[in-house]
Amino acid sequence: MAVSEVGNKQVIFKGYIDGIPKETDMELNFSNNIQFNQQLPSQALLVKNLYLSCDPYMRGRMRDFHGSYIPPFLPSKALEGFGVSKVIQSDNPNFKAGHYISGFTGWEEYSIITKTDQLRKIEPDDHIPLSFHLGLLGMPGFTAYAGFYEVCSPKSGEYVFVSAASGAVGQLVGQLAKLHGCYVVGSAGSKEKVELLKSKLGFDEAFNYKEELDLDAALKRYFPEGIDIYFDNVGGDMLDAALLNMKIHGRIAVCGMISQQSISDPKGIHNLSSLIYKRIRMQGFLQSDYLNLYPKFLEQVSSFYKQGKIVYFEDMNEGLESAPAAFVGLFLGKNVGKQVIRVAHE
Amino acid sequence: MAVSEVGNKQVIFKGYIDGIPKETDMELNFSNNIQFNQQLPSQALLVKNLYLSCDPYMRGRMRDFHGSYIPPFLPSKALEGFGVSKVIQSDNPNFKAGHYISGFTGWEEYSIITKTDQLRKIEPDDHIPLSFHLGLLGMPGFTAYAGFYEVCSPKSGEYVFVSAASGAVGQLVGQLAKLHGCYVVGSAGSKEKVELLKSKLGFDEAFNYKEELDLDAALKRYFPEGIDIYFDNVGGDMLDAALLNMKIHGRIAVCGMISQQSISDPKGIHNLSSLIYKRIRMQGFLQSDYLNLYPKFLEQVSSFYKQGKIVYFEDMNEGLESAPAAFVGLFLGKNVGKQVIRVAHE
Repeated sequence: MAVSEVGNKQVIFKGYIDGIPKETDMELNFSNNIQFNQQLPSQALLVKNLYLSCDPYMRGRMRDFHGSYIPPFLPSKALEGFGVSKVIQSDNPNFKAGHYISGFTGWEEYSIITKTDQLRKIEPDDHIPLSFHLGLLGMPGFTAYAGFYEVCSPKSGEYVFVSAASGAVGQLVGQLAKLHGCYVVGSAGSKEKVELLKSKLGFDEAFNYKEELDLDAALKRYFPEGIDIYFDNVGGDMLDAALLNMKIHGRIAVCGMISQQSISDPKGIHNLSSLIYKRIRMQGFLQSDYLNLYPKFLEQVSSFYKQGKIVYFEDMNEGLESAPAAFVGLFLGKNVGKQVIRVAHE
Repeated sequence: MAVSEVGNKQVIFKGYIDGIPKETDMELNFSNNIQFNQQLPSQALLVKNLYLSCDPYMRGRMRDFHGSYIPPFLPSKALEGFGVSKVIQSDNPNFKAGHYISGFTGWEEYSIITKTDQLRKIEPDDHIPLSFHLGLLGMPGFTAYAGFYEVCSPKSGEYVFVSAASGAVGQLVGQLAKLHGCYVVGSAGSKEKVELLKSKLGFDEAFNYKEELDLDAALKRYFPEGIDIYFDNVGGDMLDAALLNMKIHGRIAVCGMISQQSISDPKGIHNLSSLIYKRIRMQGFLQSDYLNLYPKFLEQVSSFYKQGKIVYFEDMNEGLESAPAAFVGLFLGKNVGKQVIRVAHE
């Protein structure tokens, strides 16, 4: 086939930042093109991106720090993140044109993916939206699963607190905890989210942390007997208040610190002495350490979903043009549910 | 036998305090008496106290807070703590006059002990000083043992950092870690202590934290490859610096926070986000949760000591009169090794 060239809109990372990401830290590039039917690098794929995922960890890639588990973005290049894509052309025997895949891709219409070892082929299923492979069945869902079952050591009847509870990770943590026989309370940052937690996501209780003058008092109200498991997605003041309300032998899974992620001088945590007299285990984790459990997760959570035992909420933005605002919105708590960008219809 | 009465000097707790304990928070009472050959309460013992232990946790009992694992001291009564005592009179079939025991007793010459279930009978051993049952073979030694083996998950070849390393707990942690094949660095607060760590306690390296302007830089110097295990006895700035220097999958045993113990508004810890990207487990613990291991500990550590594989340093003050100053000295770092008060010669 003859080589042909088409436009390939991109979202460009302009350069390293301090503070909360702003839309102007990214820019749309309308002048980029991509060649179809070119000779691909060995093992590479040319894909059409369908859905892109907005995740808080991406903020960490916007600073010039190389000591983390993932390198920084390259200035003047398209951002990178998890995506669901359709294979257009392949030099890789594991993937064929027409296959749907999930994995790292570019914030652009088409990408050439050369690192293919962590890509996953999606088995299409009429009962599960493709975009769920970025949320419920993707990295955030698996983070919830690995964090809850492997880090929290949950027991039926325990008291579980989840912060950022309507987010991509939190909403599944809460539902898994309910299925496990726990009592579950979530915190979120708006009336709408609190309502979602209580009426749609099956949390026993939920509260809007922005309406609470005293987080310690709020937690004492919802957990008069204390918290066995705190699944922490936010860090900062909520973590400090939770430390005061943990039960003896409580566990804190430290999953994210979105409240501190954009702050160069993060807020101090003052109540760590609780760790000693309450014998608390506080454990940071990354889902990538548990990938051997992914097949079991995929089977179990897909099955829960198809049986109607769990639900999952997405906040879907339309078009690459909406991507910078959608990403920035994460840090302002604008998204209700998992934030996804639809780049193209399937 | 006729009832007789003798003087019974006491150290009285005057009342609840803020801040670092001062000698004037306690007072000597010379006008108290005790009756010999009286009718004892059921199961009780009358003992002569030989050695009393000064431990940082006792500061926690000097505030009017009832939510901890141990209740506050009673104002106007003698302080309480671990002691080694000789039984004078017994209403308890497990203990006879002449037995040596260790356990909770009063800061006074003679005590009537009514709570006898946690007392231990000491099997006298010519090769082990009786006072060691307050340190090496007592609560601090067992804290080191349970904390190191049960909380730190140590592996041979790992890099271990111990703060307050010449203290009652730290000196044994370091030596157990060396016996386990680890590389061990300790921090302490004086030249003399650093010298002790390097020349007598077998630490690979040691440093005086008071001479370091930048604790992060100091740890980077001693652990260019990072820390696998941090055994934290101090909290505060050292914990914050250690968080920056942990290796991936590192473990922090949170044993004590003596730097923060007397501060109503403890210093904030800012580097907890390291927990996530380095997947660190941070675990608070109390030795009392591991008492099933005590017999094994006693046998193993006694045997290490008698074989000359470990040593143990005490700081012995003479006489009850010296007790307030000895206790206060703990919080000023005056003691070199385990702080003990000799109340009477055996």
